[in-house]
Amino acid sequence: MTHPDLYAQLRLFLDGNEITEPSPDLLTDQRRRFTSSPDIVLQPRSVESVQNIMRFCFKHKIPVTPQGGNTGLCGAAVAENGVLLNLSKLNRIREINLADNSITVDAGAVLQNVQQAAAEAGRLFPLSLASQGSCEIGGNIACNAGGLNVLRYGTMRDLVLGLETVLPDGSLVSHLHPLHKNTTGYDLRHLFIGSEGTLGVITGASLKLFALPQTTTTAWVGLPDIESAVKLLTLIQGHFAERLCSFELISRFALELSSGFSNIQKPVEAEWHILLELTDSVPDPELADRLAEFLFERGLENSVLAQSEQERNDLWALRENISASQRSLGTSIKHDIALPIARVAAFVRRCAPALKARFADIEIVCFGHLGDGSLHYNTFLPEIMSNDVYEYEDIINTIVYENVLQDNGTIAAEHGIGTIKKHWLPRVRTESELTLMRAVKAHLDPYNIMNPGKLLP
Amino acid sequence: MTHPDLYAQLRLFLDGNEITEPSPDLLTDQRRRFTSSPDIVLQPRSVESVQNIMRFCFKHKIPVTPQGGNTGLCGAAVAENGVLLNLSKLNRIREINLADNSITVDAGAVLQNVQQAAAEAGRLFPLSLASQGSCEIGGNIACNAGGLNVLRYGTMRDLVLGLETVLPDGSLVSHLHPLHKNTTGYDLRHLFIGSEGTLGVITGASLKLFALPQTTTTAWVGLPDIESAVKLLTLIQGHFAERLCSFELISRFALELSSGFSNIQKPVEAEWHILLELTDSVPDPELADRLAEFLFERGLENSVLAQSEQERNDLWALRENISASQRSLGTSIKHDIALPIARVAAFVRRCAPALKARFADIEIVCFGHLGDGSLHYNTFLPEIMSNDVYEYEDIINTIVYENVLQDNGTIAAEHGIGTIKKHWLPRVRTESELTLMRAVKAHLDPYNIMNPGKLLP
Repeated sequence: MTHPDLYAQLRLFLDGNEITEPSPDLLTDQRRRFTSSPDIVLQPRSVESVQNIMRFCFKHKIPVTPQGGNTGLCGAAVAENGVLLNLSKLNRIREINLADNSITVDAGAVLQNVQQAAAEAGRLFPLSLASQGSCEIGGNIACNAGGLNVLRYGTMRDLVLGLETVLPDGSLVSHLHPLHKNTTGYDLRHLFIGSEGTLGVITGASLKLFALPQTTTTAWVGLPDIESAVKLLTLIQGHFAERLCSFELISRFALELSSGFSNIQKPVEAEWHILLELTDSVPDPELADRLAEFLFERGLENSVLAQSEQERNDLWALRENISASQRSLGTSIKHDIALPIARVAAFVRRCAPALKARFADIEIVCFGHLGDGSLHYNTFLPEIMSNDVYEYEDIINTIVYENVLQDNGTIAAEHGIGTIKKHWLPRVRTESELTLMRAVKAHLDPYNIMNPGKLLP
Repeated sequence: MTHPDLYAQLRLFLDGNEITEPSPDLLTDQRRRFTSSPDIVLQPRSVESVQNIMRFCFKHKIPVTPQGGNTGLCGAAVAENGVLLNLSKLNRIREINLADNSITVDAGAVLQNVQQAAAEAGRLFPLSLASQGSCEIGGNIACNAGGLNVLRYGTMRDLVLGLETVLPDGSLVSHLHPLHKNTTGYDLRHLFIGSEGTLGVITGASLKLFALPQTTTTAWVGLPDIESAVKLLTLIQGHFAERLCSFELISRFALELSSGFSNIQKPVEAEWHILLELTDSVPDPELADRLAEFLFERGLENSVLAQSEQERNDLWALRENISASQRSLGTSIKHDIALPIARVAAFVRRCAPALKARFADIEIVCFGHLGDGSLHYNTFLPEIMSNDVYEYEDIINTIVYENVLQDNGTIAAEHGIGTIKKHWLPRVRTESELTLMRAVKAHLDPYNIMNPGKLLP
């Protein structure tokens, strides 16, 4: 597709700082499923450098795969050939503006560093997810990341005030000044958010900040079924409203795995578990008591309130260690799905028997963010520990996704489409939508150099 | 452009219920500046009917101008010819879902009716603006309406969970099931939000609901300058965080007008005034005391706290009657602008002298939503009471908008672009963005029948 001489030319064209040794952590994806085989790996240190690279690649029709922290789970940051454009060296915190409650950062800023910079300025940047120590803002935007606090603060899409983007032809579109109301023609920002690097390279973003929580109360509640959990969610939102920040669902099996792995006792015994957290941005010494009273009055006595920071950390460790603990079951077929909250129970009740009818000994680790209807629905075939399990991926996905669609859910909640789900896109978007997406892509990227083979079927 | 026979054919093609007498309230815009001259006015009562109309118009290349409550201020719902498609009869509240905190409504539902339906279900739909008694949800979405509560709840864009849209060719794109996380390909919902009827007809929407406020505290603070007001905003957000719901700025002159018109005494004397409101979704009998203490401790004694619902209503009446009261000054050249909050003071300080240098006796009524940086910046030439003032619109706009752009602001915050601002679009969007917008428009609407002449220059 591209001639080696071109890369010699590209090397001359660059100032040299961008060229990077291809290291395994850039080439292999987080799940060790895919390996990149780029012709060259570049780590630009400035927006101008990204523009120069794109201008050259556009002219010579060289494929470019943008990459952030390489924590994606759907293969969107894997380069088959061409340029692997890693943004990790473009990682400044550019500006914090307290009047506008905004922070402006480079795309390669690590999420945790952005959270810290905000905290140091007395503000909260609320996006919070397992990989926050290594995932980067550009990737969070490209896949519209979600995580633990969506219930209260929204997904990454809701947190972006403005974007700076380099288009495939190298031209710059920059809207980083914080404007809280602005409607001047079609909103293109939201086209780029969630486009997984297929329309251009995100180089910077202006993000919303919030008040830091000054009160936090954490509870663990055991419940007999998901219907009871949804009922609790509605009651608690009626009572505590926006103070409810997280509302996590954990199955008995998921808790058993995690409890064993973490060496932390199960807080209660039950079929289903809810880990919930209330926060308030002003001090409220009575919040914990009011939550205890609320649970007691509703007969929810199979529950535990964290009485110390250590107890809170233990409860959260039980939730956060589920992913690590399930590795003992071998390679999983993961599902990052979401449903209307009112339909989650019906889905779970129907999908497990459907899977078991096909694979009698299939194991299901079900947990997730019930407060926004999204589930991690991971499946394991005990006979097959290795990646050979992917042989059954299509069959398992079909059963799960058909059940998701029956309950008006989505096959991609917060991890993106990448390569592994793109053939499902025609099931969730109409032909007229797909045609429009292709038209947008063809207009911005006529030579199909931006992350080719990703997202669009 | 179109043959009269076509309309005879359209009449036969429809079931007859859709055809409406063209009444003045549909034909003349709110400011009595523009008058529609459509060939036919239609009020469909079902989504299928909208599809039928669009299929016919697409086939015969008949222009279609969608219209909601006809409260727009920029001429976007004015039909030069073809079909004026008024959505007001498509006005059902379709569903309220408490587990998902969502309400699904027809596009023609009046905003106030949606607020009421939500309140009856014990929830808040937070969009709140002057014309809420007659504006409709479809129009609110089409222009990405803002209003009084954006500071806390966002603009209409932030409140839409899903859209139902009829494309120019009559095909339906429907995503009304409430999904709080969903990233499946490019986000087209946000293309339609703010597109002012130029890409298709919005027929329904699924919207976010919130907890009803159970505590409300309202204060009026007099301040010497806007810098002090921005400082107060930052302090109060640091202290009361998301409880701050509205933070309105009013100039001395705007208050004098409104006070005279409303026959309500000015609460305090000052150059600039802030009307602020804190709400909490749980009962908090001490909130008012804490606000009083907060203001007292910071030396902000030139202020008033509403001690009763009547006093609160009076304070809000002073804010809400500004628009009506300024009619005594004649026809205004209005500016619906927004700036980074940190830049509002600099803009106001520079723009007034620039206007007065050109028009010595120009009068400026400046007020707006300082909490989100948006201003209503209305200008009057005392010698000219009638619409003849529009002769000077270009000169005045140039002075105001050049100053807005110098402070990184926007020329359109919450009213849209319509016809009156489209020639300014190239100043705020790059050529590559405008080209992409035109490509999207040409793809969806190849015959340019959807609200032709609006939005795009």
